[in-house]
Amino acid sequence: MLENITVAQLKRMTLKELLALCEEIREVITKTVLKNGGHLSSNLGTVELLVALNYVFDFPKDKLVFDVGHQCYAHKLLTGRYSEFNTIRQKGGISGFPKREESEYDCYNVGHAGTSVSAALGIAKARDVKGEDFNVIALIGDGSFNNGLIYEAFNSLRLLNTNILLILNDNGMSIAPTVGSMHEYLEILSEDIAQKNKKDRHAKIFERFGFAYDGVYDGNDLEKMIFKLEEVKEKLKIQSVILHVLTKKGKGYSFCEENPEGTHGITNSAEKFDEYSEILGRTLTRLAEKDNKIVAVTAAMTSSLGLSNFFKKYPERSVDVGICEEHAAILCASMATEGLKPYYAVYSTFLQRSFDEIIIDICGQNLPVTLCVDRAGISGADGETHQGVFDLSFLNFIPNLTVAVPKDINEFEKMLEFSADFNAPLAIRYPRAGKKIFNKREKIVCGKWEILAEGDGKYAVIACGERALNCAFNARKLLQNNGINVSVINACFVKPMDTEMLDSLKESFILTVEDNMLIGGFGSLINTYFSAAGKVVKNFAYADKFIPQGSVSELMKEFGISAEDIADYIMTNENR
Amino acid sequence: MLENITVAQLKRMTLKELLALCEEIREVITKTVLKNGGHLSSNLGTVELLVALNYVFDFPKDKLVFDVGHQCYAHKLLTGRYSEFNTIRQKGGISGFPKREESEYDCYNVGHAGTSVSAALGIAKARDVKGEDFNVIALIGDGSFNNGLIYEAFNSLRLLNTNILLILNDNGMSIAPTVGSMHEYLEILSEDIAQKNKKDRHAKIFERFGFAYDGVYDGNDLEKMIFKLEEVKEKLKIQSVILHVLTKKGKGYSFCEENPEGTHGITNSAEKFDEYSEILGRTLTRLAEKDNKIVAVTAAMTSSLGLSNFFKKYPERSVDVGICEEHAAILCASMATEGLKPYYAVYSTFLQRSFDEIIIDICGQNLPVTLCVDRAGISGADGETHQGVFDLSFLNFIPNLTVAVPKDINEFEKMLEFSADFNAPLAIRYPRAGKKIFNKREKIVCGKWEILAEGDGKYAVIACGERALNCAFNARKLLQNNGINVSVINACFVKPMDTEMLDSLKESFILTVEDNMLIGGFGSLINTYFSAAGKVVKNFAYADKFIPQGSVSELMKEFGISAEDIADYIMTNENR
Repeated sequence: MLENITVAQLKRMTLKELLALCEEIREVITKTVLKNGGHLSSNLGTVELLVALNYVFDFPKDKLVFDVGHQCYAHKLLTGRYSEFNTIRQKGGISGFPKREESEYDCYNVGHAGTSVSAALGIAKARDVKGEDFNVIALIGDGSFNNGLIYEAFNSLRLLNTNILLILNDNGMSIAPTVGSMHEYLEILSEDIAQKNKKDRHAKIFERFGFAYDGVYDGNDLEKMIFKLEEVKEKLKIQSVILHVLTKKGKGYSFCEENPEGTHGITNSAEKFDEYSEILGRTLTRLAEKDNKIVAVTAAMTSSLGLSNFFKKYPERSVDVGICEEHAAILCASMATEGLKPYYAVYSTFLQRSFDEIIIDICGQNLPVTLCVDRAGISGADGETHQGVFDLSFLNFIPNLTVAVPKDINEFEKMLEFSADFNAPLAIRYPRAGKKIFNKREKIVCGKWEILAEGDGKYAVIACGERALNCAFNARKLLQNNGINVSVINACFVKPMDTEMLDSLKESFILTVEDNMLIGGFGSLINTYFSAAGKVVKNFAYADKFIPQGSVSELMKEFGISAEDIADYIMTNENR
Repeated sequence: MLENITVAQLKRMTLKELLALCEEIREVITKTVLKNGGHLSSNLGTVELLVALNYVFDFPKDKLVFDVGHQCYAHKLLTGRYSEFNTIRQKGGISGFPKREESEYDCYNVGHAGTSVSAALGIAKARDVKGEDFNVIALIGDGSFNNGLIYEAFNSLRLLNTNILLILNDNGMSIAPTVGSMHEYLEILSEDIAQKNKKDRHAKIFERFGFAYDGVYDGNDLEKMIFKLEEVKEKLKIQSVILHVLTKKGKGYSFCEENPEGTHGITNSAEKFDEYSEILGRTLTRLAEKDNKIVAVTAAMTSSLGLSNFFKKYPERSVDVGICEEHAAILCASMATEGLKPYYAVYSTFLQRSFDEIIIDICGQNLPVTLCVDRAGISGADGETHQGVFDLSFLNFIPNLTVAVPKDINEFEKMLEFSADFNAPLAIRYPRAGKKIFNKREKIVCGKWEILAEGDGKYAVIACGERALNCAFNARKLLQNNGINVSVINACFVKPMDTEMLDSLKESFILTVEDNMLIGGFGSLINTYFSAAGKVVKNFAYADKFIPQGSVSELMKEFGISAEDIADYIMTNENR
């Protein structure tokens, strides 16, 4: 039934057919996600809601803005992407997130939390300016609802004098269970309304901002949803509406329903890697035993960051603030003013949200906050919005900040030990997983690199991080077959650089390798260092493009980093 | 009375003496600000409140966190800084903002809006972790209260399980009158309570998040404030409290009371400059006549950005969203998805708050949003938190973004005309004021530079922006006295660069000049471009330090850009 379905056909279906369609969608999603990886339980929970939305509204004339996009799979299947659905999250395939480039049914690209209400307001405002007539809907989960952007958007609803429908899809979960007072408030609303009372009084928060509040309804009850959306569509002609629905994360699959956090994101990797997050969790827990000043802060990703045990062991010294990356950074800075030793663990891509606070609050006050920047470098299948390839570029220029890139999980552990006594802002960036151990090191000294392999004295390859060093060593091997020995240097501190080592390099050709953008990254620091020195520097780093989905290794090669390219460059130089 | 006052003495004063003290404080503030520049009306409005706070609480044991810091002058005068107060905002003098380095009575550095509640929570949490006992107070104006950080902090109040006092100083103004639904709500609260009714019902928003709400009181009534704060101090032992006070911005000086926006910030500059903001306002208004797709978005700075007339003329095509820089950026992106042509005008330092949205929403979707980045480069007397010296570094590496730096106000006008037909993300950065016109140019072509002065062929000085070009031309003059002619190139696009011109340069010594940090800035792009080319490149840009307050010219020189240093470098090179 799902194959070749059009929105027009969907609108002519009976309820029974629609319910069967929902089951088919669930099967396709489950089958595909177990194969390709992706977001499972969040997508299973919203099948009925998305069928109902496509039934009631007229997409693409009406516009549906997703928040984050962990709930968009059913929408993709209903809007012409069934046949490509098996390519989801693969290189060249369809995206796991809404994508304007992919379909006119996707009107706004997302990936980071909290943007949907602002985007829906902008689209509605544009509609009004152009004098057009269509509906704009934001679909947001309760996890995203913690983000400060929601408040900023709410605050301007009346200013913009426009109407949108906001569907609050409340499943009680971010990736982890949703935390915070707004979530507690949503729970109170749900309970009250289950008891059919107090509705008017409690919904006041939303009404203050200019929304009519309508809820709470069962978002997995297709018939009710269709009826409710028809009703709300009328109301929307008069004013903006919040429709509050409850859905069951993982709906339809008991394993997912019982384990919504574990099945939020499914990884399809077969290979066994060591996770840097495990090292973070284990080491920080150990360090915190000796140092009661250590505190840990996360923004809704405690488990994936490896900190579940820390949080269990030290509840009074840990806090997950929900998807509030700005607030998390200031909490760390302010706790540090009182002598605590905060660790803020966060994915590279989400750290972008803390940018101003890293500058003003943490580094501007020169406070000993450690940023544990996970998923740095290419992250893979989630695509453009999730690649961690900008962090060196946006951290390197911040005064007072030390930027470290451990070469492997062992060095990461040493780096964390180093951080415990380091009394200034520090960022440590690392990828999700590694497997190679280069060598064990006794002691980390700030700004000091190490030579991992000696060469002939003509070419030095300076690389930061495990992936870059792997490329360097693989290139070294390729070149050794041609009788060339390059030296390989572990630049475990990107800032400050080891200028003593740089000054002592006898090699006239310097190659840099990093899992980050070329512009503003490690290589550009080396270029500046040698800009008047008569050395030839060649950088291997990512080109000035957004990096789409794919496997880490194929994307690294395609966008600028590979052993083959390094070896080719040197061979070409030799044969010139 | 104010001279040599200590907090201990203050606590022994009679009400009459305290009232006289308030008048003295007002006089000192007014006299000093009219001389040094600074924030006038906001500081006049909070004199009684700060006297009362110092009377009731025990600073520095208790902690007072300011939001933004436009209200801290009376606190400075009361806590040991009377004798240095005449140096405020001057090089080497005391700061116009709270500063930990300056006094133990300043517990948290600020400058950007909305951080105070998060910081107070972090300090309170640290107190609890350490088992200490003191009070933590956040003092925030209603303008800052629009920022999303407030919501993020509120959301975690119960999570952190700690108590703070939040004083909401409501004067109805940001720099401009405060806008938005939260502000309207605060007005409703004030009116209701003036009528002595409905209090319980309306204060629910705050209570939902775990605060006891207490208000509204006259913050300029010293006696009442002292009484109320004593009461709240007791309540604080049980739970967090919001104390809502109304103050009169500019209180005590009729000119300020009647003109609070015009007297928010006072500039002490005598020299007459042309303001880039005037060009923005005039040109954008003109372009919008022909193009009804043009819309303008600001975040609480419409007038200082030069857009008051635009807003008056095109109310349906303009919106000031309050201090919500993230939301503003997404509004622009989403309006652009619907075919509008949005201009987001913002100070460089505040654009830092939109960083993630520039990457994901604007550039990730390759949308034709124009960022008008005002106050770029060193901004002067406001110090570290307000220097616009990072924007080239945090914009250059974002894919799809074109970065332009006009050489003077004429070229800025041409650049805006260019932007109207430019169908991709564009940032135009410029300082507050200029005075020199280099030459008039007919047409801007993307990525094309111009040679402003031909040289002998040995040294090329490539500079971006008016200030950098002034340094370059002044250096050229100094060198001409020594018989050396350097060429001067206007790099009006930092990205993309004019590679055709770069490739054609016969000069072997390339000098770059920019009003931005060295790391990640324009010069570093040039270093990368020439990293294997055998040219010697020397960069003039800001050192890797936070730049404190001072005059623009003295700070430029001290931190790395001056005609003398450029000339010295070349003379040294000649004499080598």
